[in-house]
Amino acid sequence: MPFKYTFRVHWVDTDTAGVMHFTNYLRYFEACEEEFYRSIPLPFNDLRLKYGITLPRVEVHCSYKAACRFDDTIEVTMRVNELTEKTIRWDFQAIRLYDGKLAAEGYIKCIAVDSEWKPVRLPNELVEIVHEKRL
Amino acid sequence: MPFKYTFRVHWVDTDTAGVMHFTNYLRYFEACEEEFYRSIPLPFNDLRLKYGITLPRVEVHCSYKAACRFDDTIEVTMRVNELTEKTIRWDFQAIRLYDGKLAAEGYIKCIAVDSEWKPVRLPNELVEIVHEKRL
Amino acid sequence: MPFKYTFRVHWVDTDTAGVMHFTNYLRYFEACEEEFYRSIPLPFNDLRLKYGITLPRVEVHCSYKAACRFDDTIEVTMRVNELTEKTIRWDFQAIRLYDGKLAAEGYIKCIAVDSEWKPVRLPNELVEIVHEKRL
Amino acid sequence: MPFKYTFRVHWVDTDTAGVMHFTNYLRYFEACEEEFYRSIPLPFNDLRLKYGITLPRVEVHCSYKAACRFDDTIEVTMRVNELTEKTIRWDFQAIRLYDGKLAAEGYIKCIAVDSEWKPVRLPNELVEIVHEKRL
Repeated sequence: MPFKYTFRVHWVDTDTAGVMHFTNYLRYFEACEEEFYRSIPLPFNDLRLKYGITLPRVEVHCSYKAACRFDDTIEVTMRVNELTEKTIRWDFQAIRLYDGKLAAEGYIKCIAVDSEWKPVRLPNELVEIVHEKRL
Repeated sequence: MPFKYTFRVHWVDTDTAGVMHFTNYLRYFEACEEEFYRSIPLPFNDLRLKYGITLPRVEVHCSYKAACRFDDTIEVTMRVNELTEKTIRWDFQAIRLYDGKLAAEGYIKCIAVDSEWKPVRLPNELVEIVHEKRL
Repeated sequence: MPFKYTFRVHWVDTDTAGVMHFTNYLRYFEACEEEFYRSIPLPFNDLRLKYGITLPRVEVHCSYKAACRFDDTIEVTMRVNELTEKTIRWDFQAIRLYDGKLAAEGYIKCIAVDSEWKPVRLPNELVEIVHEKRL
Repeated sequence: MPFKYTFRVHWVDTDTAGVMHFTNYLRYFEACEEEFYRSIPLPFNDLRLKYGITLPRVEVHCSYKAACRFDDTIEVTMRVNELTEKTIRWDFQAIRLYDGKLAAEGYIKCIAVDSEWKPVRLPNELVEIVHEKRL
């Protein structure tokens, strides 16, 4: 089951065209990922502070289908379609709740690294939860 | 009674010092104001689209007391201490929920303008609600 | 010949890991595109205000190769590898000047639309300049 | 003599009202401060990495006089009007170059702290340069 996260488009997120700036979709995708870690609960801070592991992004992609405007409520859905020993790819869809239209979809691919930025295995807890929840 | 709005510090809100960038407090103060309009309900979009009124900011101030870090939950409290015919000043406090400490306090002062950016009276609905709720 | 644009990483662009947030590469790619329009000169504002044409983004991609930190000077190189009647894809590379390493590469694909967001042909001036400069 | 820094308003800096978001003035004020450190040359990174000193912001203020729009060229002027043993207040003005109008003015007040966030004296080099240049 995918993980869901809902947000409102803030005034500062929009631009002169009256729509949310394209980079902010990726920021809210990341906010969804952060919220997921908290929900597990495996706070990202624990990953970082206990295990010394961070998850720098190695690749991102996003396609834009319909514009989001100030005050729109957007639901982000997150799934995992690609999982290797050291990398995980979070796939996202952003839905405008007022009409159910797909606004954007994309992914953020991360690699687990230690404090020296050397690639390491993803933490077991994370992998297990992804399997268990069938994300 | 003040209006309250709670948020989590996102990763993108922080900087190399590991703390929330000082400008983001003001962005979350504005998010609190946006949430208030929705709660009235007098959506900011209605102000803008129905009445042709917007509320550009004429002055802001913020004092920083304690740092907020990634994943901290922050409660913003909003009051009105200054209200004139055409201007309103929203006063904010940001509290770190994990220890109850005041992280920052400040204000955003707005002026009502029409679509030509000419100052006009604040909408009655807004003034009445501010009085009624004793913000 | 590719178009080049140089910037410094600002403090606000970085995050708790001490590196530039992944979305800011895309923001600087767009800044490079903006600078290109000014250099032609075909200011983006002219596109918008004279021709009624804007260029919403339909797809973006970015791969991250090496981290950029506060105060690093970064050179962005912009080329066009895909040009259709109504769409243009700007391809970017970001180079860390202190060691010449590729920090990130990606693209932003745009579609020309009129004021009703209906797809239209790209302005001739833009297409001609892209050919002439062999971007 | 004040220090000067010029920038262009990027698309992402603007909002649905078609003007630069009020928090971005403060971000460009900080960019001006960063550019000053480089020009001395006393890179902010040296302060941080050599002396272990950072300059967290304790107070900011900004008044908005005239709107800035996408692609406007803005000149920021920086002066020092208040300097104590441990604090420095940078005062800024942002001028729209196309008509010479004052767009915004404000200040950022900083305190020098060591790596434990304990207040310390401002670095001598910084104080001397501020005096020497009569900022």
